Amino acid sequence: MNFITFSETNLRAFTYNVFKKMGCSDAHAELATDVLIRSDLRGIDSHGVARLSGYIRLWEKKRINATPDIKIVHETPTTATVDGDAGLGLVVAPFAMQVAIEKAEKYGSGWVSVKNSNHYGIAGYHALMAVEKDMIGISMTNASPLVAPTYANERLLGTNPMCYAFPAGKYPPVIVDMATSAAANGKLEIAQRANKSVPDGWVQDKTGENSTNPNELKNGGSLLPLGSDKDHGSHKGYGLSATVDILSAVLSGANYGPWVPPFVAFLEPSANPVGEGLGHFLGAMRVDGFRLAADFKNHLDNWVERFKNAKTIDPDKKVIIPGEPEYEFEQERKISGIPLIDVVVNDLNELANKLGIEGLK
Amino acid sequence: MNFITFSETNLRAFTYNVFKKMGCSDAHAELATDVLIRSDLRGIDSHGVARLSGYIRLWEKKRINATPDIKIVHETPTTATVDGDAGLGLVVAPFAMQVAIEKAEKYGSGWVSVKNSNHYGIAGYHALMAVEKDMIGISMTNASPLVAPTYANERLLGTNPMCYAFPAGKYPPVIVDMATSAAANGKLEIAQRANKSVPDGWVQDKTGENSTNPNELKNGGSLLPLGSDKDHGSHKGYGLSATVDILSAVLSGANYGPWVPPFVAFLEPSANPVGEGLGHFLGAMRVDGFRLAADFKNHLDNWVERFKNAKTIDPDKKVIIPGEPEYEFEQERKISGIPLIDVVVNDLNELANKLGIEGLK
Repeated sequence: MNFITFSETNLRAFTYNVFKKMGCSDAHAELATDVLIRSDLRGIDSHGVARLSGYIRLWEKKRINATPDIKIVHETPTTATVDGDAGLGLVVAPFAMQVAIEKAEKYGSGWVSVKNSNHYGIAGYHALMAVEKDMIGISMTNASPLVAPTYANERLLGTNPMCYAFPAGKYPPVIVDMATSAAANGKLEIAQRANKSVPDGWVQDKTGENSTNPNELKNGGSLLPLGSDKDHGSHKGYGLSATVDILSAVLSGANYGPWVPPFVAFLEPSANPVGEGLGHFLGAMRVDGFRLAADFKNHLDNWVERFKNAKTIDPDKKVIIPGEPEYEFEQERKISGIPLIDVVVNDLNELANKLGIEGLK
Repeated sequence: MNFITFSETNLRAFTYNVFKKMGCSDAHAELATDVLIRSDLRGIDSHGVARLSGYIRLWEKKRINATPDIKIVHETPTTATVDGDAGLGLVVAPFAMQVAIEKAEKYGSGWVSVKNSNHYGIAGYHALMAVEKDMIGISMTNASPLVAPTYANERLLGTNPMCYAFPAGKYPPVIVDMATSAAANGKLEIAQRANKSVPDGWVQDKTGENSTNPNELKNGGSLLPLGSDKDHGSHKGYGLSATVDILSAVLSGANYGPWVPPFVAFLEPSANPVGEGLGHFLGAMRVDGFRLAADFKNHLDNWVERFKNAKTIDPDKKVIIPGEPEYEFEQERKISGIPLIDVVVNDLNELANKLGIEGLK
């Protein structure tokens, strides 16, 4: 496995060209590019440009609309449902978060449930939009069914991430951004490439037996909810995933549970959908709706310091503040560039070739 | 271990008398009673009348104010901070949820962070107040530090529960109500009484080694976050617990992290608090702020049916809908009464004796 490093500028230009070839407007191409590049910068390689050819394949199958008419279809002063018109989640979710932020500016908080959308990239991107306005950002999405609820041996839920992001003072924002499964699918992919087994408690085989085979999903197996088994609270991971599914899709009119359309273009969406596309849930709350923003930030800084200075089992392994590793990646990669593994580079150059645009350089 | 069963009516009368002896107003005594009895009815025995003498001991130490002046100290149309004036969380949290509901009635959603409060009983009670109004209810609280974040060997977080509750149509509400630790402290207490070891992954000893001793907390050990270890996502349980702590306390001005005052009266609160009392976070969103309530309920019913009918590993173990077991307990115990274990009955009768009220009958 070899890495080739690209500057942020070059990777942005390439990604923008791909979205333009898809037929996106300049503004949408720029926004979708920003979501993907931010993911790579933040070290979440599984959700960055590595997904570009996946988006293109969905567009080729007409499951992504490159020129969506994204709009509010229902609202109160602080709540709304947005119809994404089958657009890229990468542009639909920022639209919805912008609605939430504007409502929060006027009324203190704003909450938007989204239907008829597609994969929205990293949850944290959208939540950070609120943080930049001194708001608390909340971001969730449902996803292709890969996870079996406790006791089941079929896939009924996605890895359905939840993200809560908080503005700090002298420290980077605290960002809890997590799949509600024991392990995200990206971790299985890493084990597949390295030909390594995965820990017990990540996946089960199609009969429901524990498995350490990273390819188990291809054999009808399932990911397990956070908690892994009933004794260790898998019903909690299942409950969190259910919460994301209900807020994102039952509330908006998107597909939920096993009806969520698969991200991979070679699997067909359900012939009998219960809603439109997949769903997201975005929220923003003004910090100064509760107390002076400066007081909140001072206390969050104090919280961060106390946890950073916690007594640890291994003195060399400090307690990690949620969001800090991604922040550090971003500072470093903005300077030294974004490393991509060669299989991704080859895939992107094949894509460029197919679309008739310049390859990566 | 023997059980003695009491009727709901008798247990309510007893509990009301205890809160009246504490000096609560009629309305507060009735409300606090309702929160505790509802917990016992719903089968969450660890949070019901078994805690009465704990509340009394805190009141005796003047850490609970029986006649609080609970009030809003900061607000926007949809957000507020409530000062609980050191009252029982059992009455402070319903006050705050009522504020959230009234804001939601006017503006679609309402969000209240609470400081200067105490233990608030089961998270689900407060969230259900919103569900009864066709709203989605959210309820969280921080709690005495018992949980070590990933890599740490000191207790910096409580079991900090999160609850999300949704109104369904023909089915009971879907209620996800969970401690963000691998196991709640009540489960350790059950193992202690039964003199049994607990599964690996619930607790660590004071050096950070895994332990199966249910008494480990008395020896300086800690509970572990949901996920149990890094490989299985304990950083996610830690992140969720941090989210609850920040929304409940950093946002309101309550104590957070290791500064949260202990529930047990024999441990003194921090001499250098960073805020006032402990904190909660309550929210309400009108379902019809997003879509017609009837449509939401029909789809949530469909969601429930699909999950109930999931293929399971053991055909006799069906997938459990979050909130359903508690609902079934409530239906049954309303008729057949509430069983209490003899140690709890003896403890309550000693309490009655001390307070000069009639014992349980």
